[in-house]
Amino acid sequence: MSTDFQSWVANCQARLESVLKELLPRADTAPQRLHEAMRYAVLDGGKRVRPLLAFASGEIAGADVERMNIAAAAIELIHAYSLVHDDMPCMDNDELRRGKPTCHVQYDEATALLVGDSLQSLAFQLLAEHRLSNDEQSRMEMIRLLAFASGSRGMAGGQAFDLANVGVTLTLPELEFMHIHKTGALIRAAIQLGALCGSDKHGERLDTDQLDKLDHFGKLIGLAFQVVDDVLDCEADTATLGKTAGKDEVNDKPTYVSLLGLQGARDMAKQLHREALQSLAVFGAAAIRLRELADFIVMRKY
Amino acid sequence: MSTDFQSWVANCQARLESVLKELLPRADTAPQRLHEAMRYAVLDGGKRVRPLLAFASGEIAGADVERMNIAAAAIELIHAYSLVHDDMPCMDNDELRRGKPTCHVQYDEATALLVGDSLQSLAFQLLAEHRLSNDEQSRMEMIRLLAFASGSRGMAGGQAFDLANVGVTLTLPELEFMHIHKTGALIRAAIQLGALCGSDKHGERLDTDQLDKLDHFGKLIGLAFQVVDDVLDCEADTATLGKTAGKDEVNDKPTYVSLLGLQGARDMAKQLHREALQSLAVFGAAAIRLRELADFIVMRKY
Repeated sequence: MSTDFQSWVANCQARLESVLKELLPRADTAPQRLHEAMRYAVLDGGKRVRPLLAFASGEIAGADVERMNIAAAAIELIHAYSLVHDDMPCMDNDELRRGKPTCHVQYDEATALLVGDSLQSLAFQLLAEHRLSNDEQSRMEMIRLLAFASGSRGMAGGQAFDLANVGVTLTLPELEFMHIHKTGALIRAAIQLGALCGSDKHGERLDTDQLDKLDHFGKLIGLAFQVVDDVLDCEADTATLGKTAGKDEVNDKPTYVSLLGLQGARDMAKQLHREALQSLAVFGAAAIRLRELADFIVMRKY
Repeated sequence: MSTDFQSWVANCQARLESVLKELLPRADTAPQRLHEAMRYAVLDGGKRVRPLLAFASGEIAGADVERMNIAAAAIELIHAYSLVHDDMPCMDNDELRRGKPTCHVQYDEATALLVGDSLQSLAFQLLAEHRLSNDEQSRMEMIRLLAFASGSRGMAGGQAFDLANVGVTLTLPELEFMHIHKTGALIRAAIQLGALCGSDKHGERLDTDQLDKLDHFGKLIGLAFQVVDDVLDCEADTATLGKTAGKDEVNDKPTYVSLLGLQGARDMAKQLHREALQSLAVFGAAAIRLRELADFIVMRKY
């Protein structure tokens, strides 16, 4: 990573952290335990990949920082809620997340359930409460996109498909279907929401072709993200990863590595990376952060 | 109940059922098991009290039926999601709901978790996707209201407060705080959303004073609803109630009956009922359905 990119990332992460701190209900507001647990689940953790993608996409569209902050926060709340629920005993039963005890371990299962539920509500509340675009159509479109990406035909649906296929040998298209939903949908939504925040800066939003190009980039980089995740889960040890490594194999989950082998999965990530960058060509220099994020996603070691 | 009211209720319920059937993802769409379980959790069950309140309130505001249908469906999806999650083993651990096995019993816990999550997303998707008012401000306000009512400072917060106080003797204000959040918030939101659907029929929405009056009605009738619930849980048998009766006492949960005695709780319901009707006086004959619903809520036997 270039020093310039590193400082952009650090700056975005710090800004998002402070925005999330401000937007989450205070831990001394009733019900205190729930609010404390919501803050525990969201703050001080993760690479914030989806918010970074939203910021990078918003910059292409000339979006206002304050607006991108809210959109990025809403997306991260959805992501955080999904992690809390995914970690629960009835799902992946994980005890470690981002190097800390998972929410149901630190608190209890009932609290973790309500934390996830409440974070989801809060995401939509934020989008409805803040004027993220002067164009009302874009505002509604953001809510619709995020809701669709979160639901049964997006992230939650991918999770259901995943659960239904533990121990089953999937074909490559089936595995792709799962990931396009499970992680891809929210990554794509992050990129679209970022872009829609810029919709009034120059009197209009990015044109449909530009939004499509960004969405295609999002689809490819979302898949690449998952392929790399599978590779890392196979390679890395628990300490580097900040979560329990080797879980996929133990749980007999279908992965790109189990389907293509380690080298095959690495090659696929490279190919997706190349294609993703191609779809940014139309934006020229304005897409520098998205390009750097694509590099980061594919080359990361944790 | 008058025959006229009975047929209005039956008509609303049938309409809502058909709207929900249409709006929920089809059971043959992937992921099939999740979609089948979502339909199981929502369709063919319940009195649909919140939708009925939304319809009754919308009628006062002269709202279009198609619009009220969507708003009512979104509210019912939030309610259904909360029931699915509340019934799970880490919460109330109920096996019977609306006379049928609860979602996690019929399917499994992981599916029930994702059903609840997906129903919540779908509720916001519907509100963002359909043009429920010509006034953009009212549309956003509906989403904001429903999100706030669902979240940690609304329904989910009330649930957390409830869990935190099992076995604890609450004061009346504390019990009221809990119920104003746990059941009251969504009931109030239903009434507000119904009214906001009417915002363009006569060129403007109900004025602030009228919305406040409706909200006050909602607050009182929401409390009355809970007081009656506690009375019924104490009196009724499982068959009539369609869910496991006497659970509150077994779980040592604080209720109006445990705090005020059976007669005290009955008196409180009557008092709330009277005050609720008073706050409808300003609407005259237009509020007939809301009045009848208030009667129904207080006098119901199940």
